[in-house]
Amino acid sequence: MGLSRRAFLERVGKAGGYGALYVTMQGMGLLATPKAYAAPNLPAGSGKGVKVAVLGAGVAGLVAAYELRKAGYEVTVLEARQRPGGRAWSVRGGDRIQQIGRPDQTVDWESGRHHYFNAGPARIPQTHRAILSYCRDLGVPLEVMVNGNRMAKLDFGGKVVTNGQATNDTRGAFAELLSKAISRGSLDQELTPADKQALLGYLGFYGDLNPERMYAGSVRSTFKDPPGGYLHPPSSGEPLRLKDMMQSRFWGASLIFEEISEMQATMLQPVGGMDRISYALYEQVKPAVKFGAEVKEIRRRGKGVRIAYVDAGGAQRLDADYAIVTIPVPVLRKITADFSPAVQKALANTQYHEGTKVAWQTRRFWEQDDFQYGGLGWTEEPSELVWYPSGGFGEKTGILVGAYSIGFSGPENPRKFAAMSFDERFAVSRRVIEKFHPGRGRELGKPVTVAWDQTPYSEGVAVSWEEAQRTTDYATLCRPDGPFFFAGEHLSYINAWQEGAALSSHEAIKLLQARVSAA
Amino acid sequence: MGLSRRAFLERVGKAGGYGALYVTMQGMGLLATPKAYAAPNLPAGSGKGVKVAVLGAGVAGLVAAYELRKAGYEVTVLEARQRPGGRAWSVRGGDRIQQIGRPDQTVDWESGRHHYFNAGPARIPQTHRAILSYCRDLGVPLEVMVNGNRMAKLDFGGKVVTNGQATNDTRGAFAELLSKAISRGSLDQELTPADKQALLGYLGFYGDLNPERMYAGSVRSTFKDPPGGYLHPPSSGEPLRLKDMMQSRFWGASLIFEEISEMQATMLQPVGGMDRISYALYEQVKPAVKFGAEVKEIRRRGKGVRIAYVDAGGAQRLDADYAIVTIPVPVLRKITADFSPAVQKALANTQYHEGTKVAWQTRRFWEQDDFQYGGLGWTEEPSELVWYPSGGFGEKTGILVGAYSIGFSGPENPRKFAAMSFDERFAVSRRVIEKFHPGRGRELGKPVTVAWDQTPYSEGVAVSWEEAQRTTDYATLCRPDGPFFFAGEHLSYINAWQEGAALSSHEAIKLLQARVSAA
Repeated sequence: MGLSRRAFLERVGKAGGYGALYVTMQGMGLLATPKAYAAPNLPAGSGKGVKVAVLGAGVAGLVAAYELRKAGYEVTVLEARQRPGGRAWSVRGGDRIQQIGRPDQTVDWESGRHHYFNAGPARIPQTHRAILSYCRDLGVPLEVMVNGNRMAKLDFGGKVVTNGQATNDTRGAFAELLSKAISRGSLDQELTPADKQALLGYLGFYGDLNPERMYAGSVRSTFKDPPGGYLHPPSSGEPLRLKDMMQSRFWGASLIFEEISEMQATMLQPVGGMDRISYALYEQVKPAVKFGAEVKEIRRRGKGVRIAYVDAGGAQRLDADYAIVTIPVPVLRKITADFSPAVQKALANTQYHEGTKVAWQTRRFWEQDDFQYGGLGWTEEPSELVWYPSGGFGEKTGILVGAYSIGFSGPENPRKFAAMSFDERFAVSRRVIEKFHPGRGRELGKPVTVAWDQTPYSEGVAVSWEEAQRTTDYATLCRPDGPFFFAGEHLSYINAWQEGAALSSHEAIKLLQARVSAA
Repeated sequence: MGLSRRAFLERVGKAGGYGALYVTMQGMGLLATPKAYAAPNLPAGSGKGVKVAVLGAGVAGLVAAYELRKAGYEVTVLEARQRPGGRAWSVRGGDRIQQIGRPDQTVDWESGRHHYFNAGPARIPQTHRAILSYCRDLGVPLEVMVNGNRMAKLDFGGKVVTNGQATNDTRGAFAELLSKAISRGSLDQELTPADKQALLGYLGFYGDLNPERMYAGSVRSTFKDPPGGYLHPPSSGEPLRLKDMMQSRFWGASLIFEEISEMQATMLQPVGGMDRISYALYEQVKPAVKFGAEVKEIRRRGKGVRIAYVDAGGAQRLDADYAIVTIPVPVLRKITADFSPAVQKALANTQYHEGTKVAWQTRRFWEQDDFQYGGLGWTEEPSELVWYPSGGFGEKTGILVGAYSIGFSGPENPRKFAAMSFDERFAVSRRVIEKFHPGRGRELGKPVTVAWDQTPYSEGVAVSWEEAQRTTDYATLCRPDGPFFFAGEHLSYINAWQEGAALSSHEAIKLLQARVSAA
């Protein structure tokens, strides 16, 4: 199989769930169910007369501004872009995409509620209660986001099969092996004769074994003939062989992906694009936000802060008592700042992941011709994923995410997707979609592409902590540095997710509030 | 465990997927992927001058009328109810529910696109290509229907746990056992040393085993502490013990339910209620349909048919060359009819299932308080299922299906749900919902209930064929009886599903067309 733990984790992490990596890798506690989420709820009026500069109007900055203003703080948010949301960016027809050192792109798509492309985060699990609470409280409608679709395709050791076949043939093969081991008495230390009988019975159902306790294929996996009317009984197709599945480096992540903590059903998305959440928060804090304000210097001034920035009117400055700094580290560390040496060192050590997507406008052939509704297709090609839309079923055209590459290089990805030219990326994506939907690759049109390491004011898709850094560089940035408090997805255990950004802001403002009440 | 094969199949069948029973129980073919669905496409004009009486405007009748009219047949549809759809019935505020021998109910709910209750079918799998093709061609918008939700609750041997915990603790326990068996050499006949090493590696990821290859809980299953911002790493909760899971009669079906052929993601539903499909078909055949027309006699007349029926104007009759008979068997066999003795015998032998639902209008507390979006909760109480809405997330109130009982009796269901009074059904449903969402049971209001065995013109939810009947009674009804052709979910291998109804109609009209061309 040749699938190392590291490679597995990389594969788990691709598809956007870096946070899932940490969750997957974490602890082994011993008790009950998750605590209910509670917003920070700073006392009303507790921030009266206290000025806070919030640097960045992504999710972390917007959440900080929203919660602080509710408590009476005087907040100013500086945002270099002309929009809120940061990496929570939904691209639509008419938008312009700028990339560092690459040509600009203008998006030439139909307008329509479902004609958007989430260049950044694109899903919300039910465990992300801070984000879901903001959606509930601010009236952001949600709908189901399909992660796991048994009809979606896997490019599985060179052969294209459905997710449902790989999943169910794997379970069948394991159930057969375990049944044999039980029958041979290999587990008599663990199981009583009554246990063995019960388990053998259950494994037959679990794996859809035949009366001889062999796995010989299942209608759960694939039909030879689907069931029909009158005299058309169903029959199952030939199963994948365990040996063949073991050869595939790809067996690992794609089959267990939707069971990892952050990826389990029900997954959600805002109706109309992920940026609906950022815009809903922005509506609450609008008077406090300055767009087009590029931070140039982050200074101490007495016990407070002085921020130098440039906007359309030229050089400006903002004085405040505190600053909440949510600027992504690759950008932040290039800004002149009066941070402590420990913070400077932590920023220098912080690594970010790449993350590159391609999106097409096209006829919804996967639904109209192939009866596949949403889900993820997985390939060993450098484009890594095909991500089908979960909304707008039945419309004529839609936006298909034809590539989502995290840029893990390895034997199967000798060339980084982000390093390719736009045309090369489009060609790879088209080839993969053609493999999954023969004859349809030629229908794809109007592609755009975003690589986060090439995106101004981001320069990376999400942090990449080494586990050892959690007690060094990470811990340093979780402590206030004088009047500076840091927040963003990078300062959480839910990296790459909006929830991590929101929860890190909650921590930052709780510390800030403690400082204010102590003063 | 005490879970017999029959009991398992009954449990698989509950939640509405009788068809799944047959699919689960069927064949062991040996080839490739499902054939593309193709509509019957009768030659245009081929039915010119031929009169067909279609008895029943459920899905089977509507499909027959639609396809025959496209080919030029002169079709009349007789329907006893004042609406199309038959069992594909979406109940809304203002509707009146009549039950045989029970008081009438008037539905006192808010109006709103998501304020409906599918008393009959409520999901569409991606494999149901006839129904999905009609949705595509007639412009019925679809959205995701959530079958599997890892946050939904199971009343699991008396203890309430999440589906995610039961699913992942089961996989973990099996992975640990299989790893032990492999390490002990029990499977050396099947596996080379290299295979063993690869499989042990993969099982670690598959089951989330610890470095000692033991399953000690997983964040996939439950959190002790969820991941947060700053210094809040996640930890996993205590796993369910295999011995405890084995005690639960309930272990079986709920955990593998969403992997059976008809229940796999992505599941779909029409936006606004399942009856949107029947109404879309009805719009195409409207001039041919007579509502309020109750069939009294089904007679032969020469080579053709004479149907006696009663409508608001009194006794009527309809003469035609052929009849397509889609009336459910419990109703049909009480109608005077010139069927052959073999058909009469088959009708007498045909058994139907019960099927009883309860629906409440209530605040969406499962979303607002508990962050659970859609899915199925399972209980051993007679109400069997709680079915959460998959649309309208974020609205203030919604319709919660608080019971879906198939009426399998057994030790855990000593009393049939359908036999209870309305108030008894409501009390059971409320108790189960209170168990899943403590403190919320009292919020439930405005309940209604439908038992299909007590519903006029249906008298059962779906056919229940014994496997042996497939070659006797079933086969008899799949053959035309002179001018009479039978159709409906009962004449398919996808029983209880709209797809079965549609495909049986396709078979019937192909035979009818063959007869006409031969004449």
